[in-house]
Amino acid sequence: MSLSPHPSFARRIGGLRSSAIRDLLTITARPEIVSLAGGLPDPELIPRTRIREASEAVLARPDAVQYTETAGWFGLREVIAARESAAGSRAVDPREVVVTHGSQQALSLLAQVLLDPGATVVVEEPAYTGALQVFRLAEARILTVPLDADGMRTDHLEELLTAGERPTLVHTVSNFHNPGSATMSVARRRHLAALAEAYGFWVIEDDPYGEIWFDAAPPAPVADHSDLVIRLSSASKILAPALRVGWLRGPRAVCEAVELVKQGADLCGSTLTQQIAATMLADEPWLAGHLERIRGVYGARAGALAAAVAGAFGDAVSATEIGGGMFCWLEFRDGTDTGLLLAAALDHGVAFVPGSAFAVGGDHRGTARLCFTTNDEATLGEAVGRLAAAHRGR
Amino acid sequence: MSLSPHPSFARRIGGLRSSAIRDLLTITARPEIVSLAGGLPDPELIPRTRIREASEAVLARPDAVQYTETAGWFGLREVIAARESAAGSRAVDPREVVVTHGSQQALSLLAQVLLDPGATVVVEEPAYTGALQVFRLAEARILTVPLDADGMRTDHLEELLTAGERPTLVHTVSNFHNPGSATMSVARRRHLAALAEAYGFWVIEDDPYGEIWFDAAPPAPVADHSDLVIRLSSASKILAPALRVGWLRGPRAVCEAVELVKQGADLCGSTLTQQIAATMLADEPWLAGHLERIRGVYGARAGALAAAVAGAFGDAVSATEIGGGMFCWLEFRDGTDTGLLLAAALDHGVAFVPGSAFAVGGDHRGTARLCFTTNDEATLGEAVGRLAAAHRGR
Repeated sequence: MSLSPHPSFARRIGGLRSSAIRDLLTITARPEIVSLAGGLPDPELIPRTRIREASEAVLARPDAVQYTETAGWFGLREVIAARESAAGSRAVDPREVVVTHGSQQALSLLAQVLLDPGATVVVEEPAYTGALQVFRLAEARILTVPLDADGMRTDHLEELLTAGERPTLVHTVSNFHNPGSATMSVARRRHLAALAEAYGFWVIEDDPYGEIWFDAAPPAPVADHSDLVIRLSSASKILAPALRVGWLRGPRAVCEAVELVKQGADLCGSTLTQQIAATMLADEPWLAGHLERIRGVYGARAGALAAAVAGAFGDAVSATEIGGGMFCWLEFRDGTDTGLLLAAALDHGVAFVPGSAFAVGGDHRGTARLCFTTNDEATLGEAVGRLAAAHRGR
Repeated sequence: MSLSPHPSFARRIGGLRSSAIRDLLTITARPEIVSLAGGLPDPELIPRTRIREASEAVLARPDAVQYTETAGWFGLREVIAARESAAGSRAVDPREVVVTHGSQQALSLLAQVLLDPGATVVVEEPAYTGALQVFRLAEARILTVPLDADGMRTDHLEELLTAGERPTLVHTVSNFHNPGSATMSVARRRHLAALAEAYGFWVIEDDPYGEIWFDAAPPAPVADHSDLVIRLSSASKILAPALRVGWLRGPRAVCEAVELVKQGADLCGSTLTQQIAATMLADEPWLAGHLERIRGVYGARAGALAAAVAGAFGDAVSATEIGGGMFCWLEFRDGTDTGLLLAAALDHGVAFVPGSAFAVGGDHRGTARLCFTTNDEATLGEAVGRLAAAHRGR
């Protein structure tokens, strides 16, 4: 027997990197730093008491602790289908819903179902980093289209298509974009759906923030306009991340293929947390009040952050109008490099995510993402004051 | 714009099939059928009251409902590391542990980390079907070595290696095999570890049943003998499947690569169910009593099933001695085709899984898996009586 080399990892593992944001979050956990870098719900707005009540009720039943169906506990699929039906003009069947371990798992399973290595995928730039991780691991060829205040520039997408590109799927965060804050206009939703039908590609409409609107609900889902749209959403932002309840809604053939892949991925989800989520999502009076509270608190914080940024930076910064979600997107017009600004900002006791963390091919040295959910209005004002001091001293 | 065809699925999806066992479970859910086909813990032995108490206590803390670290809530990693250290002779660091969404997710993430398409993987035959699903999705080249009463025939593995095969990994269910019931002997554990060191391959020691022993604990883990062994286990069989808490223990480089892939797969697990599991696993007096109860009840059922089989079939059937776990493995010596027997058995009101469900390349028409965990002794006797009647009438 000859001594062999240590076994190696799969080829693609070498190219993976940890999310820059997760690494930044470790650095910014220091108590003296006000962090606008996260993307978490405020723990005070996570309905822990209601979760405890639901957990009590659910644990009275033996089926709450056993294995469940791979596609999700059917009672939860029914609740989600009813809510999806109400959000648009199409009736959604529970068998057009698969419950996943957060909507991130839906993205990951869909990549396994839809993408062969080398397949072309289109994302928005700036991009949701969790989607980039999935598409890179799938060894997809990633193209981008820019985002503006009305969401994805579907005219740019059409240019790619007429130039001969044939994507397998197009990914969009349709409402209150992470990180760009924009919501896709109705006209562009129709245009995107029409392009999907004409050229034969899947659209993933990734929508974790749609319920967190401040003044007006977003338009009907992109999925209202074509059966080639697979919609993802989640209970993480409105109920609790720790339930790990996300879902996809899509054609039954897609749901069945996702279910097959999920058998190998983790057999099934947690009946316990799925039954807790179903209990809370089906309690309409409670949920309506809870959503109203979230919208009120986050809306006030978004307003305070936007006002503080306008007051402190004036014309040096342009900020996307914030209609909902968790983020404010800044574009510096004075040549500021936000990567350099971050170092100074940490010295001044404030953290944010430089735009480069969301870049695919473009230049995002002048942009930044600020999260407004986890600090109150006074603290947000203080944080922007620190950021402005760092900016002056750069 | 020309009308394009409907977008297609990834190439490998066409070759996937649903688990035959999951499909069989749907058929055998009828109340008049005694099912020995499952592989579930008895709901009566899932400690629902203790889960409810732990859930109450955990939900008093705000961090129980927020996102957690991708590698798992650190308090749970510490508890698992302490238990893994106690199970063998090596001290295990919490950073050598990654908490996964059931141990099935550990298998799936490891396949992404370790396997390129076409990589060679060795499994035992009969094989754990969940592992086969993962390795097939990874487009691995699957080779088998047989199992006997002392576990994996490592002499057969050595023959493959000396013939020039160079597997990337070897998968074994080391204790109370599913479906084969066997436990790997100490000599074979050493031999397998030595082969891994000599030829440079990873071993996945998949051990969800090791704590469910009846007369004597199994030998020290294979991981005691080499750092090339990655050990998987789970809280599903001893606490509750619905917690979806599994884990892997392995070298830090492996844990870090798994963590990177898990970021894309689902961001993180449920802090809530991880904190519940940690509370229960760390409560040593309670856990000791609970495990004693499980071992007593399942041990008595295993004994009753084995006695009934011996009484009803005599020399026509050889059954592996059952030292623990959840399964009894039968080999018919009289030419019975268990696929045909199943149809007759369902008519007589009893279900089991024919050996062909666990076959890779070999012939398992004469074998069958019987689960003894979810029926009491009298019902198991009745079930074997029905099976014997079906066998007589075949």
